[in-house]
Amino acid sequence: MKKTLLLLALVAAPALAGEGKWTPQQVLELNPTWLKAQGLQVPPQRLWDPKRGTGLLAGAVNVGGCTGAFISSTGLVITNHHCAFSIIQEHSSPQRDLITQGYLATSREAELPGKGARIQVPRSFTDVTKDVLAAVPAGADDLARYKAIEHKQKELVAECEKRPATRCQVATFDGGVQYVLVDSVELTDVRLVYAPPRAVGEFGGEEDNWMWPRHTGDFAIVRAYTAPDGSAAQYSEKNVPYKAEFFFPLATQGVKPGDFVMVLGYPGITFRTLLADEMAKSQSRYYPRIIDAVGESIRILEEEGEKDPAGKISVASILKGLHNWHKNAEGQLAGLKRGHIIEKQREAEEAVVRWAEKKPEFAPALSARVELLSRVEDMDKTWEREFLLGNLRAGARGVSMAVTLSRLARERAKPDLEREPAFMDREHPRIKDQLEREQKNLFLPAEKRLLQAFVRRAQALGPEARIAAVDKHFGAKATDKEVAAKIDALYAGTKLLTLPERMAMFAETEAQLQARKDPLLAFGLDLATEVAALDELKDRRDGASRRLRPEWRRAVLAHAGKPVAPDANGTLRVTFAKVQGYAPRDGVVYTPQTTLAGVLAKNTGAEPFVVPDKLLAAVQAKHFGKWVDPGLKDVPVDFLADADTTGGNSGSPTVNGKGELVGVNFDRVWENVANDFGYNPDVARNVSVDVRYVLWMLDQVEDADALLRELGVRKGPPVAQENR
Amino acid sequence: MKKTLLLLALVAAPALAGEGKWTPQQVLELNPTWLKAQGLQVPPQRLWDPKRGTGLLAGAVNVGGCTGAFISSTGLVITNHHCAFSIIQEHSSPQRDLITQGYLATSREAELPGKGARIQVPRSFTDVTKDVLAAVPAGADDLARYKAIEHKQKELVAECEKRPATRCQVATFDGGVQYVLVDSVELTDVRLVYAPPRAVGEFGGEEDNWMWPRHTGDFAIVRAYTAPDGSAAQYSEKNVPYKAEFFFPLATQGVKPGDFVMVLGYPGITFRTLLADEMAKSQSRYYPRIIDAVGESIRILEEEGEKDPAGKISVASILKGLHNWHKNAEGQLAGLKRGHIIEKQREAEEAVVRWAEKKPEFAPALSARVELLSRVEDMDKTWEREFLLGNLRAGARGVSMAVTLSRLARERAKPDLEREPAFMDREHPRIKDQLEREQKNLFLPAEKRLLQAFVRRAQALGPEARIAAVDKHFGAKATDKEVAAKIDALYAGTKLLTLPERMAMFAETEAQLQARKDPLLAFGLDLATEVAALDELKDRRDGASRRLRPEWRRAVLAHAGKPVAPDANGTLRVTFAKVQGYAPRDGVVYTPQTTLAGVLAKNTGAEPFVVPDKLLAAVQAKHFGKWVDPGLKDVPVDFLADADTTGGNSGSPTVNGKGELVGVNFDRVWENVANDFGYNPDVARNVSVDVRYVLWMLDQVEDADALLRELGVRKGPPVAQENR
Repeated sequence: MKKTLLLLALVAAPALAGEGKWTPQQVLELNPTWLKAQGLQVPPQRLWDPKRGTGLLAGAVNVGGCTGAFISSTGLVITNHHCAFSIIQEHSSPQRDLITQGYLATSREAELPGKGARIQVPRSFTDVTKDVLAAVPAGADDLARYKAIEHKQKELVAECEKRPATRCQVATFDGGVQYVLVDSVELTDVRLVYAPPRAVGEFGGEEDNWMWPRHTGDFAIVRAYTAPDGSAAQYSEKNVPYKAEFFFPLATQGVKPGDFVMVLGYPGITFRTLLADEMAKSQSRYYPRIIDAVGESIRILEEEGEKDPAGKISVASILKGLHNWHKNAEGQLAGLKRGHIIEKQREAEEAVVRWAEKKPEFAPALSARVELLSRVEDMDKTWEREFLLGNLRAGARGVSMAVTLSRLARERAKPDLEREPAFMDREHPRIKDQLEREQKNLFLPAEKRLLQAFVRRAQALGPEARIAAVDKHFGAKATDKEVAAKIDALYAGTKLLTLPERMAMFAETEAQLQARKDPLLAFGLDLATEVAALDELKDRRDGASRRLRPEWRRAVLAHAGKPVAPDANGTLRVTFAKVQGYAPRDGVVYTPQTTLAGVLAKNTGAEPFVVPDKLLAAVQAKHFGKWVDPGLKDVPVDFLADADTTGGNSGSPTVNGKGELVGVNFDRVWENVANDFGYNPDVARNVSVDVRYVLWMLDQVEDADALLRELGVRKGPPVAQENR
Repeated sequence: MKKTLLLLALVAAPALAGEGKWTPQQVLELNPTWLKAQGLQVPPQRLWDPKRGTGLLAGAVNVGGCTGAFISSTGLVITNHHCAFSIIQEHSSPQRDLITQGYLATSREAELPGKGARIQVPRSFTDVTKDVLAAVPAGADDLARYKAIEHKQKELVAECEKRPATRCQVATFDGGVQYVLVDSVELTDVRLVYAPPRAVGEFGGEEDNWMWPRHTGDFAIVRAYTAPDGSAAQYSEKNVPYKAEFFFPLATQGVKPGDFVMVLGYPGITFRTLLADEMAKSQSRYYPRIIDAVGESIRILEEEGEKDPAGKISVASILKGLHNWHKNAEGQLAGLKRGHIIEKQREAEEAVVRWAEKKPEFAPALSARVELLSRVEDMDKTWEREFLLGNLRAGARGVSMAVTLSRLARERAKPDLEREPAFMDREHPRIKDQLEREQKNLFLPAEKRLLQAFVRRAQALGPEARIAAVDKHFGAKATDKEVAAKIDALYAGTKLLTLPERMAMFAETEAQLQARKDPLLAFGLDLATEVAALDELKDRRDGASRRLRPEWRRAVLAHAGKPVAPDANGTLRVTFAKVQGYAPRDGVVYTPQTTLAGVLAKNTGAEPFVVPDKLLAAVQAKHFGKWVDPGLKDVPVDFLADADTTGGNSGSPTVNGKGELVGVNFDRVWENVANDFGYNPDVARNVSVDVRYVLWMLDQVEDADALLRELGVRKGPPVAQENR
């Protein structure tokens, strides 16, 4: 191990401090000399102008849970293939299979609008901490505190979203040290410009997921449009390309090992502000139980799928998700151990405690920590019950849909602002869509066995942690045979698995649902009562956390005496990194770049390793254009850097020190998933598509002349559309 | 790929021409300046003294199909753990489990004699080409040619072995360009001095077999004894340690990447002198059919094993062998393709043809090549039949034993010198032992299905390639059900699977076997007739080859105009190499050394990855002694070099430029098995145990003080035995 690291050092030159998902504001607090030494060539103020509250970082945009990046002033956005997949799917048919073939709009008129596609461009960030905290009434208990904060957040969002084409959120930083209102313009006319064949965009599929070496061309290009006056607007033929003030020109020279890069985007959630003891529970309890329970669901789906080819197809998508979840849990455990992440957190925590003990002003921080620690143990007795109720999605689809329908009916009876956020009006289209799409996943024999597994786990719970709905509907001590008979009767009697009936239920009140006397719905209504009560308990705990954790975190931040990047929370961040490989194990070094030769070497002609004919033809004809890397002597495909990323960074622009796009981030390596708990420089590696693979595809495989000219890559007269 | 090679170049410095298993005589024909530049520090004449016909190379000895090396003047020999396994097994019992615990003889008296252990020390090499060729009568046809050569070889061996304690062979070089009589002293008093626990010696087991990174401590130390007068002798308490003139002192400083090393030993067989078209048949026909047929046997054994735990144990050893065979065949195909080995052979061959066409004296060489090529196609029609008859060992044990017993009875009726070499008197102990040991592998349900699979393949043969014995005993067109019934009857009626009966059969004449009217023996006798006829056909082909191939090879050698290493043939060879890693695929580099940290990282506590407690204790106590590599900052375990090795090199000494032992060779990497057809410098890597792992085990784990002193490693007064 040590020797391989030594080798890496030779390759990668001095390591970069890649840790930290910095907020735009924090970039200006970092030492500019240090940033320059890392490789940042533009002044930090170009990344973020504090006066205007925007900058180059705002060239990274939110694309429906993914990140994207403007790459031209004419509204072109690059993101991951899987992030643009819904548009590709929408326009695909057996006669015109864009999924398989890919798509290149040869004129602006040929760009394909996506119905549900949305791009959010950040407009302003406002600190609303005072507003939020002022909303908490004096003497509020923990639940009231939580409810007050939640209510205030909803109010602020509603107020903010009164502006047209606006999407807002109140983001919580450091467990409540700071609340920020993020105001974004939402562009809803988004059109597909280029997508490679799925065999390129998903090359390697599940098999290569989280793996290195990687050879995936996970990118697609869309364009945002606005009304002629520049305002956001629904799709119209009269719309014009969005005029992007900030964008990342393509770096045709690419990157090489050791190069400085930045990854910009919208990372979703991380857990680094947890106390070591809190993390330890994830390690000792949560991930092992996920591996156990999700593993059981996987076995059931695989076994039942083997018995019925149609059933196998039905469960394929669910199974893919469960495998992903399972592999992630294994990676979290392996990474926590390998990176000694909890031990390091404990050391860091104890250093803060020793420091704070000498400072009377931090006495509240220390007692807040003590109370947080005491709460960790509080949950032990009911934890298994909470796990079961909290992870219904690992089990029978019918049960989780019954619970959703039940909760929806009850929440809808309340005013919108008083509902659980997940059931507010703005979420209904998503819920409806989900209930509809679930139809293709249903496979009765698997359903029944998954429910049986859930009941068996519930029956095994201790006396203080019973799930009343299970005891009522299946019997606390019923034998497996008795339970199976009840499950048969339940599925025989329910109409919930029938699509039109279920969509009717979506609109019904609780009374209407009750009146159906549907046995699965009846179970769902009872279960929903318990899930809602549990959610309230969690809200109460969250209220306590918002009372305690900011106290503790303020001590941590004061002790650091320098900027500390907050946990990811879906807001815009930037991470500073270096292109470099890593040593996954003794005797092995992963080099940081892969090549076209590697794509061909993986080609089996069978999913997920199919190289499309047009790529093969280009390679065989040695049509490499000017995209051959001088060091690699081949066209580069993917590369590694030590950027600090997580889910939500899919599609993030990977940018060089000049602010040019060198890649499109699309994954982390498996050794790095525990990164969510702590940054381990030995294995913290993100995976990007090399921009030269993008350019080679457009240039040598697709001959996308107009698009390349628009991107400033090909010389020649600008195409007509560019001057619109 | 290209980039990773570039990286390797940085690590390993200029590549060494590692190709060539040189004979001792050839070492003196190589350019001494080149050898010195590679890193050879001793004069070539120390490796081999042409006047005496011996030298340091003779410090490498033949240990029953493996190689071993003298490491002291006092008869100590180091070899692989698996090469000394029979001695360890012989002295193991449930009460004293040396296999699991390992063994250290704490005094010379405690060294454990091995019944069947043999060490052959080369004494002389005599060119007998003229004698052999003179034995061929004028006008002999191809079969007569072959028989005459074979008979002469047997005569020369018999004459040579008249000396006491002598083992001889006539080795064929370059398909018959040269014949050499190798005369060796056979030492039969061989005693176990040290073996690590099997968990070290076989660490990683089948799972890591042929793999890198590797963490196996595959070594053991034995000592050869002689009569007090120095002559070879059977075990006796009066015997004294063999006085080795040539031995390899242990290099306590070990090796580092880029270092020059030599690997000495007795490589078994390679195929580099084949014509490209001949190799192409291996690629298109032999290895794919092995993968198919051996794959079928594997499936049968696994399926039947799953049904019966005892059966699973019975077939485990066979299954291990079949998996190895299967994995090797896959490696050969992958390596032939990856290294473009056949294309390169074709290019080289065509260059010789173009050159020879201008030289009338090589007209016979060219026509010899043409005839060899025409013979490649000749075999097509009957090839599948030959494959089935030639690979009985992939199928039912009962059938191959029946054939062996039948052939043995028939051959024994002839004078010893006229028999097939495999059935000469000197082979009988081996055959008997094999027939006895086979008992533990027998599992009737698997037997029956394997025979059924064989019959089904035989039934599918074309009309010109029938196996008469199958047609007679099972019916050419019998249905599967009818065949199954006959197989049931055959196994119900045979006594061959009963050990005492089978051992009685071993001694019987053909008439006695016939009189038994045993249905399996009856089938075996008929099959043996066909196998013997096929062997005669192969002898006839071999006779043709010995007429033609030397003509062609003389042209090849003349064209080269410099020494060309001949194919491996079980005789003493040396290969010059460099310590270096390799790039197994795009994005991955294997570094050339592994460490103790890597051993611990693989430790699962379950076979085959169990780190024995005493090792763990030494590591946890940081007892690393002076065996930490300064670059690795850890104790090295295994290392790679680009030596040109094959089967038979197991246990070969890996030696530095000063002639000191730096490692013990025990494997090649999987990417390198097609090395038997051609050397691919990108992946030609052999695997050695680092001598410092050996020394760390002896010093820090075993505290083998006396042994270390005898090896000259620890300072301090020499132990008494050293002065004997």
